[in-house]
Amino acid sequence: MDHLIDAPAAMRCESRVFEDGGNVTASVSLEPGQRLRVIKFVAHGWSSQRSLNSVRDQVWAALTGARQAGWDGLLSAQRAYLDDFWSRADVEVHGDVEIQQAVRFGLFHVLQAGARGEERPVPAKGLTGPGYDGHAFWDTEAFVLPALTLTAPEAAASALRWRHKTLPVARQRAAQLGFAGAAFPWRTITGQECSGYWPAGTAAFHVNADIAAAVVRYVDATADEEFARAEGIELLVETARLWRSLGHHDGEGRFHIDGVTGPDEYSAIADDNVYTNLMAQHNLLAAAAAAEKYPDRARELAIDAEESAGWRDAAQAMFIPYDEALGVHPQAAAFTRHQTWDFAGTPAENYPLMLHYPYLDLYRKQVVKQADLVLAMQARPEAFTAEQKARNFDYYEALTVRDSSLSACTQAVIAAEVGQLSLAFDYLGEAALIDLDDLQHNSRDGVHIASLAGTWIALVAGFGGMRHVNGLVSFTPRLPEGITRLAFALLMRGHLLHVEVTHKSARYLLADGDPLEIEHHGQRLTLSAGQQQEQQIPHLARRPRPSQPPGREPSHRTAGTSQSG
Amino acid sequence: MDHLIDAPAAMRCESRVFEDGGNVTASVSLEPGQRLRVIKFVAHGWSSQRSLNSVRDQVWAALTGARQAGWDGLLSAQRAYLDDFWSRADVEVHGDVEIQQAVRFGLFHVLQAGARGEERPVPAKGLTGPGYDGHAFWDTEAFVLPALTLTAPEAAASALRWRHKTLPVARQRAAQLGFAGAAFPWRTITGQECSGYWPAGTAAFHVNADIAAAVVRYVDATADEEFARAEGIELLVETARLWRSLGHHDGEGRFHIDGVTGPDEYSAIADDNVYTNLMAQHNLLAAAAAAEKYPDRARELAIDAEESAGWRDAAQAMFIPYDEALGVHPQAAAFTRHQTWDFAGTPAENYPLMLHYPYLDLYRKQVVKQADLVLAMQARPEAFTAEQKARNFDYYEALTVRDSSLSACTQAVIAAEVGQLSLAFDYLGEAALIDLDDLQHNSRDGVHIASLAGTWIALVAGFGGMRHVNGLVSFTPRLPEGITRLAFALLMRGHLLHVEVTHKSARYLLADGDPLEIEHHGQRLTLSAGQQQEQQIPHLARRPRPSQPPGREPSHRTAGTSQSG
Repeated sequence: MDHLIDAPAAMRCESRVFEDGGNVTASVSLEPGQRLRVIKFVAHGWSSQRSLNSVRDQVWAALTGARQAGWDGLLSAQRAYLDDFWSRADVEVHGDVEIQQAVRFGLFHVLQAGARGEERPVPAKGLTGPGYDGHAFWDTEAFVLPALTLTAPEAAASALRWRHKTLPVARQRAAQLGFAGAAFPWRTITGQECSGYWPAGTAAFHVNADIAAAVVRYVDATADEEFARAEGIELLVETARLWRSLGHHDGEGRFHIDGVTGPDEYSAIADDNVYTNLMAQHNLLAAAAAAEKYPDRARELAIDAEESAGWRDAAQAMFIPYDEALGVHPQAAAFTRHQTWDFAGTPAENYPLMLHYPYLDLYRKQVVKQADLVLAMQARPEAFTAEQKARNFDYYEALTVRDSSLSACTQAVIAAEVGQLSLAFDYLGEAALIDLDDLQHNSRDGVHIASLAGTWIALVAGFGGMRHVNGLVSFTPRLPEGITRLAFALLMRGHLLHVEVTHKSARYLLADGDPLEIEHHGQRLTLSAGQQQEQQIPHLARRPRPSQPPGREPSHRTAGTSQSG
Repeated sequence: MDHLIDAPAAMRCESRVFEDGGNVTASVSLEPGQRLRVIKFVAHGWSSQRSLNSVRDQVWAALTGARQAGWDGLLSAQRAYLDDFWSRADVEVHGDVEIQQAVRFGLFHVLQAGARGEERPVPAKGLTGPGYDGHAFWDTEAFVLPALTLTAPEAAASALRWRHKTLPVARQRAAQLGFAGAAFPWRTITGQECSGYWPAGTAAFHVNADIAAAVVRYVDATADEEFARAEGIELLVETARLWRSLGHHDGEGRFHIDGVTGPDEYSAIADDNVYTNLMAQHNLLAAAAAAEKYPDRARELAIDAEESAGWRDAAQAMFIPYDEALGVHPQAAAFTRHQTWDFAGTPAENYPLMLHYPYLDLYRKQVVKQADLVLAMQARPEAFTAEQKARNFDYYEALTVRDSSLSACTQAVIAAEVGQLSLAFDYLGEAALIDLDDLQHNSRDGVHIASLAGTWIALVAGFGGMRHVNGLVSFTPRLPEGITRLAFALLMRGHLLHVEVTHKSARYLLADGDPLEIEHHGQRLTLSAGQQQEQQIPHLARRPRPSQPPGREPSHRTAGTSQSG
C-alpha cells in the first residue's frame, strides 16, 4: 500500500527548504511489497518590491491552501483549468500527427508563459530557459497575444496591463529621445530600454504600434470596456503621440516616418518602412477613435479636437512607398533599388549571416532576415490588393533567409493566402517543430515562444485564413495536402466560434450568444447560436512556387514527417 | 660673461637622462655679475619595431651630430630650414594683423606636424596634445595635405608614403568587410581601424577617395614620377577596387554607393552621398588613367583591360542625386525630403548638438554638423554649375551648425566663390583663430591641425580662388573689405608661382621654369618665367547674405579683430 507522509511532515520539509535551502531526511520502515509515497508541496514567491516578510507570508498562505486542497485537490483544480483552456484553445490537425503534437506543445508553453496572472512580461523564452536574459520583446504583442487573445483573453489582458504599468518609464524614454508620448523599449523586464545597440533596438519603434494593435485586437475580441476605458485608451494615445512627433509632413503633405528600423533585422535606420508606417497609421486612427468613444477619458488625457484631428490627418497622409517598375512594395524607401545580396556566393556554413558578415554590408543590400513587408501584409491585410500580395510574396521569398525564428509562421500565413499551400505547409513545419526538433540548435536556452504561438497562427490565420479587421472576423480556409481536417475555436466576446475545415468545405458553429457576422472567402454570413453553416472551399488557381535563396528553402514536409531539403 | 658647460659635460648629462631618467647637478662658482649658461642637447628616438640598442645608437648619433654642430650650428640649420619653408609657404595678409599672425601660426604647426620625415601619420592634434589619442583621420589628406603639397611637397609625400605602408592592413580590412581592394581606417595610428562605432567610422568610406585625391593632387603638383609609379598607382588602384565592389549598378545602369556615411557626422548610413560619389568617381577615373599611363605597373598589379574599363564605366554611370523641385543637390539621397531640425526650439546651451540629442534623432533630420555637400563643391568644382553652387550654398548655410572644426574653412572657400565675401571673411576668422582664441574651449587637448591648415585653404582657395582640376591651376581672386592685399606662392612642379591680390587686380609671377598655363576668372593665361602679368578683378554682382541657424552665425569680423555676433 502507498505510504503517505502526513501533511505536517511535508510542511516542515517545505519550511526547511524555504529557510535553509537545505535537505530533508525521512526515515520510514517498509515491509516487503509496501511503497513509500512522499507528497511534497512547493510554493514559490518573488517580488522586486515587497518585503521578505510579505513574500514569506504569501508563500505560507499558498502552502496552507495547498495542504487544505491536498494533492488530489490541486490536481483536479489544475486539470479543470487546463480542460477549460483546451476546450477553447485546442486545434485539431488530422493527417499530421507531428503538427498535431506540436501545436498542443506550443499552446501549452504559450499558456504557461502568458497566464501566470502576475502582470509580468511574457519573455521571449517563456518560463523555460535563460536565453535573452529573460527579456521580453515585441514578440509578445505581435506573436503571442494574437493566440492568447482568442483562446485565453485574461492572459492577454494581463500582458497588456503589464505594458500599461510601464507607461511612466516609456514616457520618460520618449522625452529623453525628444519625442512626445511614450516610447516602449525594444527589450526589457521592468520597462526600461535594455538594448544597447540603438540602430536595431530603440530605432525599431514599431514595437509601439505592435502594442497598440494588440490593444485594439483584445478590445475587439473581448469588448472589455473596463480595460478599453482604463488602460487601453492610454496605451493607444501615448503611442499615437509618439508617432505624430516621430513623423512629419513633406512639402506635398505626405506623412513620413524617417530613420527607423522595421522588423527585419538585416536592415536598419531606413525611411518609410512599410510595416512601421501601416502599423503607425492603424495606431493613430485607433487613438482618435478611442478619444471619440470615451470623451471623458480624452479630457483626462488632455486630448483636444486639434490633437485627434492631427492623428487622423497623419494617418490619412501616411506615405506608403511603392515600386511601380517592379510592381512591388519596397520594404522601406529605396529598398528594391539596393544591390541584391550575393546568395549564390554565400556558402551554407555562412548562415546565419549575422555571425559571418558585418551589419555594415547586410544593411546596404537586399537580404531579409525575417518577414517584414510580408508581416505587414498579414497585420494590415486590407492595405494590399490580392495581386500585390502575390507579387510581394514572390519578391520577398527570393530575399528572405529566415535567420530569425520570427519568420516561418508569417511566411506560412501569407503563402497560404496567396495559394502556395505546399510551401505554407513547409513553413508551418518549421515554425511548429523549432523546439521539438531543435531546428536552431539552441532550445537548451529555452523554447521560442513566438514561434510556438506562430504554430497556432500558421494554422488558424494560415490554413484557416482567419483575419480580424475593424471588428469583422473573416476566413479564407484552404488546407494543404498533408492536412485532411483542421478544427479550431475562437473566443469572440465570450462566445465560442467553432471552425472545422476539410478540403471541400468549412463549417462554422457559434456556440451561443447573439448572432455573429463573419466572412467566408469574401462572402458575408450571419451565424446564429447553435446553427452550423457549411460553405464550400472555392477552386484555387495554381501559380508557380516562388524560389528562396539557394540553400534556404524550407524543408519539404510530407504529412506527419519532415524531410531535409 | 656667459659660462658655457663644456660639451663632454653636456654629453654626460644627456647620457644620465637617457639611461636613468634622473637628474643632473652642476656645481659652478659664480662671481657677482657673472652668468651661467647651460646648453643642453636633447635627442629623442622611438620605434615600435627596432631594438633598444638600435634606438639608443640613433639617439647617440643625433647627440654626436648636435655636439659637432653646436648650438649655433643647430640654430642656423633650423633657421635655414624654416627660411626655406617660409620663402615658399608664407602668406601675406595686409589689413588684418590677427589673420596675418594666425595663418603663420597655423602653417608653423602644419609644418611641424607634417614634416618630421618619419613616414608617420599627421595626427588630428599634430604634435601638440593628447586629443583623439594621437589618432589620424581623413583630416590629413583632405585638409592638411592640400596646404603641404603646394608648400612643402616632401612632407606631403611622406604622409602619403605612410598611408601606402599601411596598405596590407587596409587590404585585410577590405577583405574582412567583404570588399575588394583596400579599406583605409577612419581613425588610426598604425593602419588598423580604431573606431568602434562603425556608422560614423568604417562606414565613412570617403576617406579612401580623400587619400586618392591627395595622391592625384600631389602628383599633379610635383610631377613626382617615382612616387606615382611606385606608391601612387597602388593607392589609386586599391581604393578604386574598393569603390567598384562597394557600389553597384541599378536596373537602369546608374551606379550607386549605398549605406555609407559622408563627411557630415550628423548623418550616417545613407545612399548616394554626393561628396562620396563624386570623390569615388574621381578615384575610379584616376586609377584607370594611372593604369593606362604605367602599363608595366598595371600588369604587376594584375589590372587587365576589363577591370579598368569597369572603373571608367562605374565613374561614368555614377549617380548624383538632385532635387529638381528645390533646385539643390541633396547631401545624400532623400536628404532634402527629411524633416528640418527644430533650430528655433534649440537653446544656445544645447550646442554642440551631439552632447544633447541622440544620434537617432540627429541622423533622421536635416541638420549638418560640418560642410559635406559644400565640401563636395570645393573638391569637385567642375561637377556643379555656378548657379547650383550659389543655391546649394544658401540651402546648406541654413542647416549647418558647425559643431565640428572641419567646416568653417570650407564654408569660407565656397562663400568666397559665390560672392559672399563678408561671410567668407567671418568664416576665415573662425578657422584661423580656433586655437589662438580657443574658440572651442579645448585647445588644451592640442591644436586643430585641419582648421589651421584650413586658414591657408580659406585664404588661397577662398580669397585667392585657387582650384587645381585635371592639372590646371585656376584662380578667381577677390578680397573682402577687411583684407587690402593678399600674397602667397605655390610650388608647382618645383617652380614658385607668386600670386598677389588687391581689390583691383591680381598679379601672377612664375619665378622660373617652363611657361605655365593658368586661369584668371575663366580666362586662360600663359605665364613665362620672370614676367609678371596683372589682371583686373571683375565686378561682383551682390546677392543677399544667406542665413544660418539662429545663434549659429559666425562672429562678425572687422579687419584685425573679431566681435561676438
